[in-house]
Amino acid sequence: MNWSINEHQYNKNRTELNGNKFLIGNGYMGYRGTLDEHGKEHLVSCVMSGLYDKVGNSWREPINAPNGLYTKLYCDGEWISVVSAEPHKHQQSLDLKHALHQRETIFKTNHGNQIQIQSERFFSLDHVHLICMKYSFKANQDCQIVIETGIDGDVWDINGPHFKQITNGTNGDLLYVQALTQELGYQLTVSEAAEIPFGKQQIVSSEHSIIRRITVDAKSGKPYVFHKYVSVFSSNDPVKDCGQEAFVSSLEALKKGYPALFQAHQQLWEQRWQQSDIEIIGDPEAQLALRYSIYHLLVIAPTHSDQVSIPARGLSGQVYKGAVFWDTEMFMLPFFMYTNPEIARNLVKYRCHTLGGARLKAQEYGYRGAFYAWESQDTGEDACTLFNITDVFTGRPMRTYFRDKQVHISADVTYGIWQYYLLTGDESILLEGGAEVILECARFFYSYAYFNKDKARYEILDVTGPDEYHERVNNNIFTSRMVKYTLEVALDVLKILKQKYKKEYNRLVDKLHYQPDLAKIVEMNEQLYIPQPHPTSLVIEQFDGYDKLEDVSLKDIKSRVIHPNEYWGGGNGIATGTKIIKQADTIAMLNMFKDQYSHEVKKANWEYYEPRTEHGSSLSPCLYSLVAADIGNADWGYKYFMKTATIDLTGESKQYVGDLYIGGTHPAANGGAWMSAILGFAGVNANEKAITIKPKLPTRWKAIGFNLCWRDQKFHIKISKSVIEIRASKDNTFTSLFIINGKPIECIAAQEKKLIY
Amino acid sequence: MNWSINEHQYNKNRTELNGNKFLIGNGYMGYRGTLDEHGKEHLVSCVMSGLYDKVGNSWREPINAPNGLYTKLYCDGEWISVVSAEPHKHQQSLDLKHALHQRETIFKTNHGNQIQIQSERFFSLDHVHLICMKYSFKANQDCQIVIETGIDGDVWDINGPHFKQITNGTNGDLLYVQALTQELGYQLTVSEAAEIPFGKQQIVSSEHSIIRRITVDAKSGKPYVFHKYVSVFSSNDPVKDCGQEAFVSSLEALKKGYPALFQAHQQLWEQRWQQSDIEIIGDPEAQLALRYSIYHLLVIAPTHSDQVSIPARGLSGQVYKGAVFWDTEMFMLPFFMYTNPEIARNLVKYRCHTLGGARLKAQEYGYRGAFYAWESQDTGEDACTLFNITDVFTGRPMRTYFRDKQVHISADVTYGIWQYYLLTGDESILLEGGAEVILECARFFYSYAYFNKDKARYEILDVTGPDEYHERVNNNIFTSRMVKYTLEVALDVLKILKQKYKKEYNRLVDKLHYQPDLAKIVEMNEQLYIPQPHPTSLVIEQFDGYDKLEDVSLKDIKSRVIHPNEYWGGGNGIATGTKIIKQADTIAMLNMFKDQYSHEVKKANWEYYEPRTEHGSSLSPCLYSLVAADIGNADWGYKYFMKTATIDLTGESKQYVGDLYIGGTHPAANGGAWMSAILGFAGVNANEKAITIKPKLPTRWKAIGFNLCWRDQKFHIKISKSVIEIRASKDNTFTSLFIINGKPIECIAAQEKKLIY
Repeated sequence: MNWSINEHQYNKNRTELNGNKFLIGNGYMGYRGTLDEHGKEHLVSCVMSGLYDKVGNSWREPINAPNGLYTKLYCDGEWISVVSAEPHKHQQSLDLKHALHQRETIFKTNHGNQIQIQSERFFSLDHVHLICMKYSFKANQDCQIVIETGIDGDVWDINGPHFKQITNGTNGDLLYVQALTQELGYQLTVSEAAEIPFGKQQIVSSEHSIIRRITVDAKSGKPYVFHKYVSVFSSNDPVKDCGQEAFVSSLEALKKGYPALFQAHQQLWEQRWQQSDIEIIGDPEAQLALRYSIYHLLVIAPTHSDQVSIPARGLSGQVYKGAVFWDTEMFMLPFFMYTNPEIARNLVKYRCHTLGGARLKAQEYGYRGAFYAWESQDTGEDACTLFNITDVFTGRPMRTYFRDKQVHISADVTYGIWQYYLLTGDESILLEGGAEVILECARFFYSYAYFNKDKARYEILDVTGPDEYHERVNNNIFTSRMVKYTLEVALDVLKILKQKYKKEYNRLVDKLHYQPDLAKIVEMNEQLYIPQPHPTSLVIEQFDGYDKLEDVSLKDIKSRVIHPNEYWGGGNGIATGTKIIKQADTIAMLNMFKDQYSHEVKKANWEYYEPRTEHGSSLSPCLYSLVAADIGNADWGYKYFMKTATIDLTGESKQYVGDLYIGGTHPAANGGAWMSAILGFAGVNANEKAITIKPKLPTRWKAIGFNLCWRDQKFHIKISKSVIEIRASKDNTFTSLFIINGKPIECIAAQEKKLIY
Repeated sequence: MNWSINEHQYNKNRTELNGNKFLIGNGYMGYRGTLDEHGKEHLVSCVMSGLYDKVGNSWREPINAPNGLYTKLYCDGEWISVVSAEPHKHQQSLDLKHALHQRETIFKTNHGNQIQIQSERFFSLDHVHLICMKYSFKANQDCQIVIETGIDGDVWDINGPHFKQITNGTNGDLLYVQALTQELGYQLTVSEAAEIPFGKQQIVSSEHSIIRRITVDAKSGKPYVFHKYVSVFSSNDPVKDCGQEAFVSSLEALKKGYPALFQAHQQLWEQRWQQSDIEIIGDPEAQLALRYSIYHLLVIAPTHSDQVSIPARGLSGQVYKGAVFWDTEMFMLPFFMYTNPEIARNLVKYRCHTLGGARLKAQEYGYRGAFYAWESQDTGEDACTLFNITDVFTGRPMRTYFRDKQVHISADVTYGIWQYYLLTGDESILLEGGAEVILECARFFYSYAYFNKDKARYEILDVTGPDEYHERVNNNIFTSRMVKYTLEVALDVLKILKQKYKKEYNRLVDKLHYQPDLAKIVEMNEQLYIPQPHPTSLVIEQFDGYDKLEDVSLKDIKSRVIHPNEYWGGGNGIATGTKIIKQADTIAMLNMFKDQYSHEVKKANWEYYEPRTEHGSSLSPCLYSLVAADIGNADWGYKYFMKTATIDLTGESKQYVGDLYIGGTHPAANGGAWMSAILGFAGVNANEKAITIKPKLPTRWKAIGFNLCWRDQKFHIKISKSVIEIRASKDNTFTSLFIINGKPIECIAAQEKKLIY
């Protein structure tokens, strides 16, 4: 079985893409897949999760820590690197099973010597502040080798520099770089312990950096190996003295040594895969792509804190401001809920933690309740600007309505909390802020809605749905249905609290002065207008007036493009006046509420919207895949599944919108690939009562095997073309209900079921 | 006293501008101020009022009739014209008093001869189908002169050609060109009788044209004079056979002869001026500009039909589709109501006539009642397209929201009807469709409005106010206040009908099924949200969120302009995200409801918005002038008055938006100049009960004298710095009430009052 991603030659033009492709991380930090000798111009970046900084009027963005892996090699004075010369042989690899990055490169020097460099690195999952590196070299002629390795504080930033008062120095045998963030004055310390059993060492420090210079007379054919233990702490961490913590961490790592540290890391990763892996029989390409997608979700998943979540570009850089979008709830959370509920809980708690920011945003726009940030950072205040994109034709900032009109975000947040609660049964989430968030989101929508007296209905006006090419529309099907969902959930939450947690119910209703809103929310829930399928075509109009837009083909609209990076939406975009949509919108709604629409309606809408969707967002294809599977056409969905699952392997995605770089990894697509496979092709659909399974495997898949967590229970499920096998884990505590193609099946601890379907 | 406009030399580059400047017409037709020898490339145009045509997918636009004034002169084979040679001397003149166009040009031929050409033309006010021309020439050496004169059917069109089945021929001594319009197949006939007492005549016809070729051996120094009588009829006129009518008309004119025809025309014009003129003592420049403005209103005023109105560019061409905008009600109607109420009635009736189109538009957008066309032509269906402007940067059509969001048009129509009724006392207008229009406009607004339950108020959302640079805004002060006005008027109309015309009331309420809407309109009128002055600054926010826009100076925003014709509004315009507004919006509202706001509020808003107004519309400056006068700062307003009054004299106005030519005359500014002088500086403000006068003359004006019609009475009023003289006409039938600076003064027939104020 293939657990490895490789590139077998070095290609300068792929440095940026490989930075994403070979990303490693542990949820606390992410590290781009650059090589040891790369610098800021190659977008080396050690991104800190949840630590943001703002300089002047530029966007707030996450901080890149000083690079403790900085390493350069000189042979007889000649810099040996992929930057300065074409390597003779090169391989870069990623071991998905253990989140281990490796490279091996052979260079020929100007003097005919041959130098082999090998290195590997991992970001410890056992101790998330720790980065470990092993580096070795070998020359085939005697020569003088100089190694420079240390901490480089001159980091790549989009809107930096983010550090002030940068100091560096040594502490015993340790090197360190220490700095304060510009905006909030957080202290950040990076320390490095090294185990270098050869050569003479000199310490060289400059303004931002401190390095060791090791000089060794290398013998022909002899391998020289050293290890580094880099620790990163900030004063945003729950520690007393982050400098001290970093020192202790590096020293302890040095004491334990690389093999032991890797072993601890490896064990945890193997446990993770036991929970998360999917086996696909009959389709090795899909197998690798899906595993790779899961890998990407796991390297960025926060295990260390419930006050951070996963940004839209994961931990692959500062793109999209390191901000958390609806992507997390709608595309990543399902994977975590079904496989790693403790991580899912962290993601959900982050929204409770950021309720204050959402309240401020609602107030800013004259509403009540919680209007969540479209681009959420540490406090939940909205990092999204009103002028997000630059017009390529005029170079001017372009007004977009992501921040103020994409109100569905508050419904998406509600959806995340509620789904987490339903699938895990974890009522504590409601008591620890979840209920409050949901009630505030419902209240926000009440204050946002208008009543159309002439038509005796509430309407949700002036919104931007997922299809961002059509801004400020009325009665967008996705948004309106999600608003109704929020109202329904708010009423359910209140019922649950009232029944089971009367005291908490009273406390919350009092605290929020919610009593007067109760009847309003009941009324709005009954009278909210939801666009309905057309009586004959069954198509649901995406928003008021969509039907009147120009019906142009994707091919034709592409022929109108003048500038390759021009934005298709906004006031004057080429899609704005047409039926071409950026991404699934009606289809997204039909996926979420699949039980409430007939097969015919879902099919009619899939067929109508599919040729009109540009998939300008990486969130789009997986939804078409999901609904294709739902309507029994798995093979229609397969190409969308593969597009989604391979996005970070191929690097084929939009890299620019206007002059804005939007490259990086695509965790929402990674999550979407998992959704396509499990919720789509395997046909899993759980609620609080049962796990429904209605498989529709693509033709080329012989079988799929995976694990599921559901309400404190764990199952291994294997689905072939005609058989479903369910193996309940031994620690099951109660009887679980499956519904297999409509038939109820009960399953208790340690039981195995085999069913022909 | 100066009644004449002149240019003393010929400038090729001013051909287009002079076409506007020297416009003549009679309300049935307009004729651009081009010269006899000009052709379609010089925008020669004889625009027909109310006769439209559409070719293919192009805009519908008014029709240019075949040019019956076409005349060329050759001397010994050499074409003598401003087109082919620089004239030796040239003068073009317009006699404002009689709407008479004259030219006199002296040419030197290649052979050293000197040719003088004189011509004059008028569009008969006595018989609006008739165009008369006198043409004379003189050579100072013997030579052969050839005159070509006839009817040229190869006319200038923006979106033509508008004719099919063009035929031409002779009928006895008459020439004619006859054609059908492409879209609706209206027949149009142009016939020409000529009185040419010299030379040999030949008839030459080509595909579109028919001309007489006159050859004469001209004697040195001898003047040769001829006359032409051109008649234009269409099957849209209330005649049986428009061809026959044209022939009869030309023959009768020939019989009467030029002097008699001119005399009849002249008399009517002198009567008009008796009603319409304004005398300004102490400011000859303002005097001429104001008279010129009034001239422009009079040449385009429809006297012949109550089914046409005045287009935004008058009868100066096909610009703006020859469509009628809010300009008519808000900027032109006041002049006519106060001076020519019978013409005002025609303008108002036009809106009754086009109610059907307004109903269709409301239905198209899912509303009830009457949503009047933003650009109204013959049927009242909206000629405005959704993509009105071309983006200069991409060459693509740009989506604007004039058509679907400038809903204030239905309130403006209501305002016109109601003001006409109040100032004339003509109740018949209500019975002949006016009441129905008003009720349907109120109903439209009810169906358009939304109720904000959270704030317990109706709101008017998603509109574009007069300031078109900010589209799709909520709670625009101008729009919302005008909507409320419409509701108030609808309730007043119902009260009047119920009291005085019970039968008509019942018939109308039944016909419209209006009973269920009555209570709704009462409620909405009580609960409609109207933005209020800020408690401390007293500024009224133009719309929700205006306060948060970038506050940039006009100078700064101009420095951002990249392309001279770029559109400042729309999705990405340079004004869109700023506080810079295209034209008076809040100030327009304060002018209309001046009695309802304090001096302090008006002053605060004038001072706030004035530096933020671009005056990108010619409708804007007069409103600043009006409110400046109202707050007692006539001299602040004077520059805006002069800007407005001279717009068609100087030609200094935007000629292009995107690549769209918007040149032409500016009747709304012409009307605005009158409003500034009479309603502003003279301080006239009449309602159904009294005429209030609160003069605030600009410093340089010693006195102003003018006539006023009010409820079947006529007055001459003269206002100097401290004295107001009122002379009531002899045919007054009842006692009129004046309120002079707050004091009531009664005035009866033939009475003269002299008051110190």
